Amino acid sequence: MSDEEKNDALIVFTPSGKRGRFDIGTPILSAARSLGVDIDSVCGGRAICGRCQVIVPEGEFAKHGIVSRADHLNEFTSVEDRYSSKRNLKSGRRLSCQARIQGDVVIEVPPESQVHKQVVRKRADVRDIALDPVTRLYYIEVDEPDMHHPSGDLERVYKALHDQWEIEQVYTDLRTLQTLQKVLRQGEWKVTVAIYHGHIRSRDRIISVWPGFQDKVYGVAMDIGSTTIAAHLWELGSGKNVASAGLMNPQIRFGEDLMSRVSYVMMNPGGDVDMTAAVREAINALIGQVTAEAMIDLNDVLEVVFVGNPIMHHLLLGIDPTELGGAPFALATNSSKTLWASEIDLHMHPDARVYVLPCIAGHVGADAAAVVLSEGPHLQDDNWLIVDVGTNAELILGNKDRLLACSSPTGPAFEGAQISCGQRAAPGAIERLRIDPETLEPRFKVIGSDLWSDEDGFDEVIERTGVTGICGSGIIEALAEMFLKGIITRDGAIDGSMAATSPRIQEDGRTFSYLIWEGEQEIRVTQNDVRQIQLAKGALYAGAALLMEHLGITTLDRITLAGAFGSHIDVKYAMVLGMLPDCELAKVSSAGNAAGSGASIALLNSKARREIEKVVKEIEKIETAVEPKFQEHFVGAMGFPHATDPYEKLAQEVQLPKPKATAQSGGGRDGGGRRRRRDRV
Amino acid sequence: MSDEEKNDALIVFTPSGKRGRFDIGTPILSAARSLGVDIDSVCGGRAICGRCQVIVPEGEFAKHGIVSRADHLNEFTSVEDRYSSKRNLKSGRRLSCQARIQGDVVIEVPPESQVHKQVVRKRADVRDIALDPVTRLYYIEVDEPDMHHPSGDLERVYKALHDQWEIEQVYTDLRTLQTLQKVLRQGEWKVTVAIYHGHIRSRDRIISVWPGFQDKVYGVAMDIGSTTIAAHLWELGSGKNVASAGLMNPQIRFGEDLMSRVSYVMMNPGGDVDMTAAVREAINALIGQVTAEAMIDLNDVLEVVFVGNPIMHHLLLGIDPTELGGAPFALATNSSKTLWASEIDLHMHPDARVYVLPCIAGHVGADAAAVVLSEGPHLQDDNWLIVDVGTNAELILGNKDRLLACSSPTGPAFEGAQISCGQRAAPGAIERLRIDPETLEPRFKVIGSDLWSDEDGFDEVIERTGVTGICGSGIIEALAEMFLKGIITRDGAIDGSMAATSPRIQEDGRTFSYLIWEGEQEIRVTQNDVRQIQLAKGALYAGAALLMEHLGITTLDRITLAGAFGSHIDVKYAMVLGMLPDCELAKVSSAGNAAGSGASIALLNSKARREIEKVVKEIEKIETAVEPKFQEHFVGAMGFPHATDPYEKLAQEVQLPKPKATAQSGGGRDGGGRRRRRDRV
Repeated sequence: MSDEEKNDALIVFTPSGKRGRFDIGTPILSAARSLGVDIDSVCGGRAICGRCQVIVPEGEFAKHGIVSRADHLNEFTSVEDRYSSKRNLKSGRRLSCQARIQGDVVIEVPPESQVHKQVVRKRADVRDIALDPVTRLYYIEVDEPDMHHPSGDLERVYKALHDQWEIEQVYTDLRTLQTLQKVLRQGEWKVTVAIYHGHIRSRDRIISVWPGFQDKVYGVAMDIGSTTIAAHLWELGSGKNVASAGLMNPQIRFGEDLMSRVSYVMMNPGGDVDMTAAVREAINALIGQVTAEAMIDLNDVLEVVFVGNPIMHHLLLGIDPTELGGAPFALATNSSKTLWASEIDLHMHPDARVYVLPCIAGHVGADAAAVVLSEGPHLQDDNWLIVDVGTNAELILGNKDRLLACSSPTGPAFEGAQISCGQRAAPGAIERLRIDPETLEPRFKVIGSDLWSDEDGFDEVIERTGVTGICGSGIIEALAEMFLKGIITRDGAIDGSMAATSPRIQEDGRTFSYLIWEGEQEIRVTQNDVRQIQLAKGALYAGAALLMEHLGITTLDRITLAGAFGSHIDVKYAMVLGMLPDCELAKVSSAGNAAGSGASIALLNSKARREIEKVVKEIEKIETAVEPKFQEHFVGAMGFPHATDPYEKLAQEVQLPKPKATAQSGGGRDGGGRRRRRDRV
Repeated sequence: MSDEEKNDALIVFTPSGKRGRFDIGTPILSAARSLGVDIDSVCGGRAICGRCQVIVPEGEFAKHGIVSRADHLNEFTSVEDRYSSKRNLKSGRRLSCQARIQGDVVIEVPPESQVHKQVVRKRADVRDIALDPVTRLYYIEVDEPDMHHPSGDLERVYKALHDQWEIEQVYTDLRTLQTLQKVLRQGEWKVTVAIYHGHIRSRDRIISVWPGFQDKVYGVAMDIGSTTIAAHLWELGSGKNVASAGLMNPQIRFGEDLMSRVSYVMMNPGGDVDMTAAVREAINALIGQVTAEAMIDLNDVLEVVFVGNPIMHHLLLGIDPTELGGAPFALATNSSKTLWASEIDLHMHPDARVYVLPCIAGHVGADAAAVVLSEGPHLQDDNWLIVDVGTNAELILGNKDRLLACSSPTGPAFEGAQISCGQRAAPGAIERLRIDPETLEPRFKVIGSDLWSDEDGFDEVIERTGVTGICGSGIIEALAEMFLKGIITRDGAIDGSMAATSPRIQEDGRTFSYLIWEGEQEIRVTQNDVRQIQLAKGALYAGAALLMEHLGITTLDRITLAGAFGSHIDVKYAMVLGMLPDCELAKVSSAGNAAGSGASIALLNSKARREIEKVVKEIEKIETAVEPKFQEHFVGAMGFPHATDPYEKLAQEVQLPKPKATAQSGGGRDGGGRRRRRDRV
């Protein structure tokens, strides 16, 4: 029997490989649906949305045992012509709702036509995140009212959703209901509805209705930091990041760091209200900025996801953070929260929804939860330490069987605060520094320029930005270099005896300091600066050691530094200073803005919300403040260096002779015996 | 074996008759719970709320085979002493959470100690409504935060609800969460929470938290009429009506009747916003008034239930009612609606909930749904016609198998509008009228006085209120009396020939009028007034006839007139005028404010909400505007009288001779043969 006489034909979808025989005349989209092939559609097969585009590769596909020919589909239809003339259907593509089977074909579903397309950002080594937004668009054609069978306009919308999309048990927000009748008539009974799919079926809600066909809606993922607020605007249907921006957190005027903001509230009852208003205003400004940049109507923003540390979390939600300022550091809630954007005074679509990730504990916030969601330590086998360094360091340690979390009171030294010449990471701040082993002369780079200070043209840099201070990553490098060059001893003292040989080492009251720069302002590292960093790194190390103890491990397989600090510092120097327990250097990396990525994942993937809610519940929370062991680790971790192998390796890497102070220590360990030799380096 | 040696004892609860044997020492409350005996408790057995009071009748109860003795319970405990000293425990009563079984006893549960106590108002002849409020109070003792096991304060509240009340899967509104931490500490971890029990389990929500023990919360049932707004304040825990009040609907300034308000919106785009604001302001004023009257904190009002005609329903919710102003009269929604009070700008507890009953059709509102809920035609066998007369008459006809609804465009004549001397029911308005069959002189009563106009002292009435006009019930009686005394003919003409014998019948242009009063202002019934009432009653009759036809019946078993008009008119006169199809007069009654009662039932009984939602869906909606038969019935029903038997009977009742114009008609019917002889009179 020839192909022409057959009543059905074989269809093979790629890349899924799903295949089946279908009656001649069956639309490709229908065949795909019955095989469970993932093809997107907003218009429900009406050739309006163009989301269901497919490609027909021609030729013999031995692997699939099929000869595919483009003319084994019906001819290009007038409906496709119309779509193409309006929206330009690329050559070789068909709308799968219009293309019908006439003979055997292979149908390639390009990534952009899949509902569950992979979101661009990958979860480190673990798995990709598929697009699975909570808010989706549905184009429907609604029955007109009929006096003989009176029913509400809304109920006819429900009927259309049921008949055309098999969606049932939907509710509608009042504000959407208030405009529904006008929109239906404006669209001549053809409308697009946005449905917010609650994780419980009875919570599915129509949150917007547009006349006719609406193509795109947006969501914003936000990371509310103590210092900066970052926003990432995403198109929910395609998973495309269309804009990102950051802004200083205006709460800084109430206090530089978190605890000073809590103190502000304690000292100024009602002060939390002002701080809440300030952060919400900044959020509105930032959302205004990203939507303007992407030239998007604010009304098309239907979702916002927030992450932040516990105090930012509470202030955002309008909860007085006083309880977080002292033991027992009780969170108002450690669950996720779903709200209307209007409940927290955000200006966008009136029925837009807000999802706030859960905090892990009183000191370990929703930002840390987002880091977990982004990195996925709960999905792998390594004993993985993830550290998010801010004013407090939040630490996550574990693997797929067990995950622990704590925070360490590092204080703001890593952010450049409490350092004599410290400053925030901003143009003019020293961020890289090297010390000549012979002359002990420094060379450095400032933010805003790629030139080293001893290179030609640096004068221009001085003119443009100045050399204004030293930022977090700069102070780490400065100290590590000073230590490597013997300027700082193992116990953290600036070695005054070297003042004789180098004019950079100068007497400074009873102690000594290292002079980096004599410009409009002098920039130096003082003995007190070293002590501040010692305290901070001691706390960070102690937190990690405590978690390792609780997990019952003595070595780490992997370390990731998340957050701005983590992306700016050279992890080598962090290891030189012994900020963290030993780990093979190749396995120490920075994750960039993992909290922002986690927020974006939660925005784009509804299952990710359930996932992180579950994981957060299961994480073991360790409170450093009540663990006597923490204090022990802390005291023991103040000295330099904690890591010797990394030091040796580093010394070679940077091609410098071994520093005097540590040259003798060989492969040994500093006192206390708390750490064992690593075997695998 | 003597009683003393037994390890258990018999306990019989009355009035339920439930019985069982329990170990000596078992608290009565526990025994009651294990037997499923309905005893209230807010504090969960902590002797705080006193809701679980019981009485121990002594003596031999042959019926139950038990000898009951008060000393078969433990002695009055110190806890009961403390409760009694604070709140006065009536003599002979025990707190069932403290009283323990020592021997056989009968325990009487007084009605006020039952959770599901009967609500005072009865559903006519059908069944009582048991108290089953949607919002309930739970006293809990919450674990304090523990650094070693960090969890949110809210999650420990959930744990307490689970452990102490077996309540799970609760969510919490943001506003309640914002104050939670302070309230918990203020109450020293003992708090009362109010939970709004959604009909879907996942919708249970904590909507308020008070420090310590909170005894009472309140709800308001509101009927939003075109002319008046009525509010009934209820204590949700006891089902006690603590205050009621009414107020003019301020929307009247935008138009007297509904259609003129819709026209206002059509002519003034955005005018609906002003009307919405006006009605919400009035609602707030009225709720302020009832709470002030009952000396209740506005913050303790946690629920409001609304009913109203479709246009009021839409305006209340902020929905432009334009679509209801013309065919096909499409409702925005015909479902019930649950909202936050704040969504419609109501001032009370910030998380108070609003429930709006469903509208039945474009002309048949949530007020009609409330009437159905209150009267229960869907629960009985009779062919029952329920009519709510307002500017439109809403009609419900049927029984437990089938229920139909329609509205008739009666216009506002029954409310005294479009009548030359008509006015709203207010002091000074004529509401009762009799005409002497010989002299044709009228005597009447005005609202605000019990005196007839020919009685001594009426001068004072004139001075106090004046005789200012004639209200709806007055015009009905006037016309019926005029008809009975032969002043009006069967076709509705005022008989000019009688002008010769009575000075009351006066020439009035080309027609005649009947002079009732010559005071500061003349009050008369004009020929046009008669026509207006004929049109109104023709429409009302036609609606009823149409429903009967659809139901396939020719006689009614029962008629109920609901609403203000229904309670004010003398149903006899309504029947004389042929306002409604024949029915045995004893079976014609008025139901008073059935819509307000229905709203109250929905407020006090959560199942009633599901019940009316279901019934409303099942009601067959008849649109009079598209039924040609309606017009036929309408034209045929304009003349007087439609009822002859009632007339004859009434003529005897009011002890007046038969009017000339109808004396000859005997038991026959007026032309058209549309109505058959009733057999049962």
